[in-house]
Amino acid sequence: MIFNVATLYPEIIISYRKTGIIGRGVRDKAIEINAFDIRDFSADKHNRTDDYPYGGGNGMVMTPQPVCDCIEAIKCGRDVPVIFFSPRGKRLTTQLAKDYAKKEEMILLCGHYEGIDKRALDLTVTEEISIGDYIVTGGHIAAMCFIDAVSRYVPGVLGKTAGAYSESFENGLLEYDQYTRPPEFRGMKVPEVLLSGHAANIARYQKQQSISITERLRGDLIEEYLKEKQNKG
Amino acid sequence: MIFNVATLYPEIIISYRKTGIIGRGVRDKAIEINAFDIRDFSADKHNRTDDYPYGGGNGMVMTPQPVCDCIEAIKCGRDVPVIFFSPRGKRLTTQLAKDYAKKEEMILLCGHYEGIDKRALDLTVTEEISIGDYIVTGGHIAAMCFIDAVSRYVPGVLGKTAGAYSESFENGLLEYDQYTRPPEFRGMKVPEVLLSGHAANIARYQKQQSISITERLRGDLIEEYLKEKQNKG
Repeated sequence: MIFNVATLYPEIIISYRKTGIIGRGVRDKAIEINAFDIRDFSADKHNRTDDYPYGGGNGMVMTPQPVCDCIEAIKCGRDVPVIFFSPRGKRLTTQLAKDYAKKEEMILLCGHYEGIDKRALDLTVTEEISIGDYIVTGGHIAAMCFIDAVSRYVPGVLGKTAGAYSESFENGLLEYDQYTRPPEFRGMKVPEVLLSGHAANIARYQKQQSISITERLRGDLIEEYLKEKQNKG
Repeated sequence: MIFNVATLYPEIIISYRKTGIIGRGVRDKAIEINAFDIRDFSADKHNRTDDYPYGGGNGMVMTPQPVCDCIEAIKCGRDVPVIFFSPRGKRLTTQLAKDYAKKEEMILLCGHYEGIDKRALDLTVTEEISIGDYIVTGGHIAAMCFIDAVSRYVPGVLGKTAGAYSESFENGLLEYDQYTRPPEFRGMKVPEVLLSGHAANIARYQKQQSISITERLRGDLIEEYLKEKQNKG
């Protein structure tokens, strides 16, 4: 899986691709993350990439030329999906992340300041994705969220056990509580059943915990879960 | 506003706090972002911070001791909110970001691997926040989202015009399209009204655009918007 990130801040993407599980995935060549500086494609003599918005208003808007030239240079005539991060986009979910994990390559276009000139978006973008109902200072934050969420489902990123993680949303429920050593910490003990070695009891306990946590915190998810369960008979 | 980030990957936070609008906010002292390495607080002779989960399962769980000691060192006896990022948490929204922007200081606890031992969470965390219904590889990604979303509303971060930005969700609608120079790009023209200089017409055009974009993409938001409008008479 190749992620090509077009941004005004490639340095954060370069730091990101060295970090943690993503860093390991890059080193193991399960994923590739390339950072492109949109500024490098500016035809302006001062390398400017933004200008005042037509119609007034605060903030600056990214000019169309550097964005289009950058995306076209990455595509190099090939047909590669171009994702733009925007509150208008399709909501990022675990399911959407899994779908994108099946692709081979994509371009992630990051907006900065007040946004990107609409014409550049019309000329380059094939899909829009939203990470949530809040505004971040730039698309580089959304790009990292997206790469993170998608990469988990790319074989080799989470190691040999990819996909086997018992994470929230995997089965439509929130995850149960996690415990590790020591068995007693500041007088607080690990639930006895988890120390029992009795696999069936542990599985039952964790499932019940997942359900009760989801019931308490996310009534919407539990409704979906019960509906699915009924459908399966 | 002081953000204290407790993570196993302080290097990405250090890169983040130099970048873009956040970097400017830090240099202008409107916000302060401190990165603490949880590993530095490990009492283990190999500085380990994780161990196998009780009850089996894939992935590692962060041990309680380094987490508790790190958070307590940051708090230093003071009463500071400790936010943990988790799919169980309250959903991050623009409104939630505005509420947090009024606080003076907080600690952002980042989980990694399969999560943090439940006892450490019980002992330290005061609130849980979710950035969306997807899983990222670590809490450092969520922390950057959160700092980004909150900082926009901290005076001085967006410059003198803070809060005056016409962003999506600000008035319950998605944002209108943005245009900047040149007036014609690859044969595509900026909508004439935006070049007219007629402020009232421009405002009307942008408002109508906002409404029709929101109607098309987010039926849920438009319902809320119309309800609010009716209530205001």
